[in-house]
Amino acid sequence: MTFSSKLIEKAVEAFASLPGIGRKTALRLVLHLLKQENSVTTRFAEALVAMREGIRECSICHNLSDEEKCQICADARRDHSLICVVENVRDLMAIEDTGQYRGLYHVLGGVISPIEGVGPADLNIDSLLARMPSGEVKEVIMAISPTIEGETTVYYLSKKLHAEGVQVSAIARGVAFGGDLEYADELTLGRSIVARVPYTSK
Amino acid sequence: MTFSSKLIEKAVEAFASLPGIGRKTALRLVLHLLKQENSVTTRFAEALVAMREGIRECSICHNLSDEEKCQICADARRDHSLICVVENVRDLMAIEDTGQYRGLYHVLGGVISPIEGVGPADLNIDSLLARMPSGEVKEVIMAISPTIEGETTVYYLSKKLHAEGVQVSAIARGVAFGGDLEYADELTLGRSIVARVPYTSK
Repeated sequence: MTFSSKLIEKAVEAFASLPGIGRKTALRLVLHLLKQENSVTTRFAEALVAMREGIRECSICHNLSDEEKCQICADARRDHSLICVVENVRDLMAIEDTGQYRGLYHVLGGVISPIEGVGPADLNIDSLLARMPSGEVKEVIMAISPTIEGETTVYYLSKKLHAEGVQVSAIARGVAFGGDLEYADELTLGRSIVARVPYTSK
Repeated sequence: MTFSSKLIEKAVEAFASLPGIGRKTALRLVLHLLKQENSVTTRFAEALVAMREGIRECSICHNLSDEEKCQICADARRDHSLICVVENVRDLMAIEDTGQYRGLYHVLGGVISPIEGVGPADLNIDSLLARMPSGEVKEVIMAISPTIEGETTVYYLSKKLHAEGVQVSAIARGVAFGGDLEYADELTLGRSIVARVPYTSK
């Protein structure tokens, strides 16, 4: 792509440096901004800079936060006896979006993976254990990917957490609601039979 | 999507206000920026603001430009006797990308469309005609979409340009190179037979 304007070229390159945005899409976005008032671009840029400079990690759960303590940890109406452990902020948001969970979270920042050189010390594990001694937490729910690394992490954490005398559970896995059995993968379907639950008609 | 951070929410909304970017993609872009140094976001924002505030329309051809006169109009090595008329900057860039054209351009800013209330006065037509009297321009090439509105615009322009004593041509249309005949649309295939050209074996 050849540009007769350095300013446009730089703006296109800026957009194209983002994941999943090619140069054609980047050009479309730049031309879109050019059709709008200057203030649209200024506000767009300001929102990004304010976000990047203002955002912090919650000092308790490592969620992204505007304050020292995130809105979830600071919310007295939530159930402070429950902590859901997630790999990253995206998973936290996915669970929040369900509207089904009213406890707290703990963002690990990944899973234990010897191949990628990620050990327990690289994750937010000490800070999770540090939340136990107060006695407020009754149950820790593992919402970790069912990969080998994820299972290893869950095993490691459960040992540490049981030593703290806290109950550990894991999110239910099985065939998705609305999912046809024939399209479920073998592992999921097989495990969902082994881990069958009593049927209640209510 | 629920956010526990206002800063993130605003940044996601900023990205999601761009065409073709949904909230999930917007979140992915924001989380990407959060993984980078602050300076990446700052430079990204600065490139956009500099582009939006610095960009102008070339005073001659209405191309986007960093200066009063765009790089193409200012280039003495280009053929100043040829002007290619395009609807918009994107079409200009597409032709530039071919590397096959070394003349100048004129960006109309649209086509005549009575239905959408676009008349000749809303387009950069007067400024095109104003380029003729110098006598430097020998030929004006129409590179306008072959729609009813496009054809109307070409007809209108050609009448005006012929009155100025300048030659008017249109880009060749037909079956695309590498395109299978069976996949060409009927109109294109039909016209490409009617407008057949002598075969030269050189």
